[in-house]
Amino acid sequence: MTSTDLTPGDLSSALNREQAEAELFELLRIPSVSADPSHKEDLVRAAEFLRVKLESLGFTARVDETGGHPAVYAEHLKAPGKPTVLLYGHYDVQPEAPLEEWVTPPFEPTVRDGRIYARGSTDDKGQAYAHVRGVELLQTQGELPVNIKFLLEGEEEIGSPSIVPYLQAHREELQADVIVISDGSRFAADVPTITYGVRGLSYVEIHVQGANRDLHSGSYGGAAPNPINALCEIIARLKDDHGRVTIPGFYDGIEELTGEEREMWASLPQDDDAFAQSIGVSALPGEDGYSVLERLWGRPTLDVNGIWGGYQGEGSKTVIAAKAGAKVSMRLVPGQDPDRITRLIQEYVPTIAPAGVTVEVRALHGGQPIKFDTSSTYVKAADRALERVYGKPAVFARTGGSIPIVASFAEILKSPVLFVDMGLNEDAPHSPNESFALADYHNGILTSAYLLEELGK
Amino acid sequence: MTSTDLTPGDLSSALNREQAEAELFELLRIPSVSADPSHKEDLVRAAEFLRVKLESLGFTARVDETGGHPAVYAEHLKAPGKPTVLLYGHYDVQPEAPLEEWVTPPFEPTVRDGRIYARGSTDDKGQAYAHVRGVELLQTQGELPVNIKFLLEGEEEIGSPSIVPYLQAHREELQADVIVISDGSRFAADVPTITYGVRGLSYVEIHVQGANRDLHSGSYGGAAPNPINALCEIIARLKDDHGRVTIPGFYDGIEELTGEEREMWASLPQDDDAFAQSIGVSALPGEDGYSVLERLWGRPTLDVNGIWGGYQGEGSKTVIAAKAGAKVSMRLVPGQDPDRITRLIQEYVPTIAPAGVTVEVRALHGGQPIKFDTSSTYVKAADRALERVYGKPAVFARTGGSIPIVASFAEILKSPVLFVDMGLNEDAPHSPNESFALADYHNGILTSAYLLEELGK
Repeated sequence: MTSTDLTPGDLSSALNREQAEAELFELLRIPSVSADPSHKEDLVRAAEFLRVKLESLGFTARVDETGGHPAVYAEHLKAPGKPTVLLYGHYDVQPEAPLEEWVTPPFEPTVRDGRIYARGSTDDKGQAYAHVRGVELLQTQGELPVNIKFLLEGEEEIGSPSIVPYLQAHREELQADVIVISDGSRFAADVPTITYGVRGLSYVEIHVQGANRDLHSGSYGGAAPNPINALCEIIARLKDDHGRVTIPGFYDGIEELTGEEREMWASLPQDDDAFAQSIGVSALPGEDGYSVLERLWGRPTLDVNGIWGGYQGEGSKTVIAAKAGAKVSMRLVPGQDPDRITRLIQEYVPTIAPAGVTVEVRALHGGQPIKFDTSSTYVKAADRALERVYGKPAVFARTGGSIPIVASFAEILKSPVLFVDMGLNEDAPHSPNESFALADYHNGILTSAYLLEELGK
Repeated sequence: MTSTDLTPGDLSSALNREQAEAELFELLRIPSVSADPSHKEDLVRAAEFLRVKLESLGFTARVDETGGHPAVYAEHLKAPGKPTVLLYGHYDVQPEAPLEEWVTPPFEPTVRDGRIYARGSTDDKGQAYAHVRGVELLQTQGELPVNIKFLLEGEEEIGSPSIVPYLQAHREELQADVIVISDGSRFAADVPTITYGVRGLSYVEIHVQGANRDLHSGSYGGAAPNPINALCEIIARLKDDHGRVTIPGFYDGIEELTGEEREMWASLPQDDDAFAQSIGVSALPGEDGYSVLERLWGRPTLDVNGIWGGYQGEGSKTVIAAKAGAKVSMRLVPGQDPDRITRLIQEYVPTIAPAGVTVEVRALHGGQPIKFDTSSTYVKAADRALERVYGKPAVFARTGGSIPIVASFAEILKSPVLFVDMGLNEDAPHSPNESFALADYHNGILTSAYLLEELGK
């Protein structure tokens, strides 16, 4: 039979779940934390692991230097006249901190209640590897019905600093009719989701300097500038009582949500109380005048991601610190340019700094907000593939996350991008005890196989 | 000759500077950090060192268990009919952090430009040991002219938690006509100073809890409460734009400064610009309507001594932390009760916490503010002793620091306390590169000897 005769279930019977899990676990055991230079070699190991696997599937595969962590490129171009699909993912992971909160070690994958617990299990090793296994699954049915290219990078969690020059250098080689990315969350466990928008990001560090040394808070308290108090004032002034960011010009040019979008999202099975309960909070504060989903998907935010200063040890040290700092990130929506927003906060912070301290706002990284056309043939193919797996049509959602690479794809490769997310928010990406449901992993493999098939029709 | 014939200089010729320095250095090499449990044994070693030295001077000396770090008690009571002087000091030191800012190791005393650089050099090992050497110096002139008791504790830097029960248990034994404490700073290098007031202290930790786990700032930013932003808002709200603490009732009952005090302080050679330059800042912010000295000595303050939350490592982790915390201390003035102030902030913080987070304010420790009578015979004796060393009369100042023990002395032992400070603010106590001028150490030894002599007259 030919793959086009396939009906739902045909391929699921061909899944080799045990092997698929064993291989993913091997990848998850490699602590490829891109933010931590001490893990440099682990990123190389993870890249090598993927190259070897893709070669075993008949791909021409290599590990490319990028100046930073390496990128894995592989191609299988044996379907003349058929579309070319570029499958993008990343094999690097977030830092594991705080380590003490993990129930089982972050780099020793463990299955509990049908979930794989490990750093990177859902973000993004599990989802990226589902495509590798999806290709392998489809190969059990004969020749691949499309041309396939893999690009698996090692710097997504630090903002893909090397990917732009890489894309530019390999523009021709990376040409594709569509780029498929699986690096996010579906709306809910039983809801197949096509994501048509991502928020952008501006991530900065604020550094505040007071005196030229730590001071005794008794001898100097009342006259010496306190950089920690000053930093707190600055951060408090970045938002008003309505949850709006106060940086002048921050909201200029934003694409307001359409009535259609607001209706579509309002119709989704979203339970704010259950959402609040799932993270153990009594309220979901945010910008006035917007629903929770609208704030998560369609509105910009400002969050402090880390703060430090002074004495953090045991006991009570009576010191006025010389300096303090904070990591601050802003999620952006269509109409906001990350570079411009970064410049705006760099200009604004010094104007709200209290007397006696000096401030510096360092740009760490950024990403463009994106929205896609939901009527393309690729979106329709994805919709069919998901329906074959889940037995129901997909919902169209946006995501609050940021995937800076997407903007670069649009700009440099000029190819349309398709998000086929396999994870869930409750997978807790970036948190201790990150996990990925076994069912979602195997459905992801099926989704990948069906999608490649549908794209080949 | 008898010691009463002494004139300035007589004893200085009898100083054995080399030996005095060698012995202090040995004490400074012991990392007796009371806030850090891992240094427990070092505190015992420091106590032993002092006991052995005092025995060598003919004292009956012992190291007493206190439930916390031990206390050294020694007595030399061979001057019948003469007053009894209790010399109090502490052999514990502040934590050395941030270690990387020390030019030379904190526990390897090093002399540069006539200064001893080491943690504890001025606070308080150097000043406490000056009294030990002062006694030894006076002994070169014959029998001691007063009865002397030493109490050297090991918990001053953590708020002397064990000293109150200790004083109560040894009330009789510790009886004295006057208690002498040298644990602070003179007004300036060439200005002998008698300190007649200390600020009190209320030291708390604020803990803010948001979600039950760290969250991805993309997936949750805009709806999840952010405990770091919340903590910053809380801290910013603790002070108003006039530098006044906003806690309701905070200023109730404060003893306002007298016109006499404000005049006396205004007449001191205080150069605010030089003061700002000495700590490398462009402004000296504080409570409106008061001079720098008034703010430092006579007005309460609120300073954050440490803050933490979220990701503090390299790179840009996009996380919303589950919790954040800060150490906050308030310096208090006569009329403010530490327990009451602690209760007030514990009641106030929850009322200013943003929605969605839970807060807890933990009391760490406190100390009573104090003011002494400046017309006592003991103050006059100290004035004469200082004039013999410096050739000029002392100025009367207060200090911004807190010595909780002082209130306990007043309450439990009912003895007047005399502050004879030997250090300087530029010694940078509690900071990296803490130091103590060799000249101040040796003048301190002389001051101690002359003071004991004057008290014996």
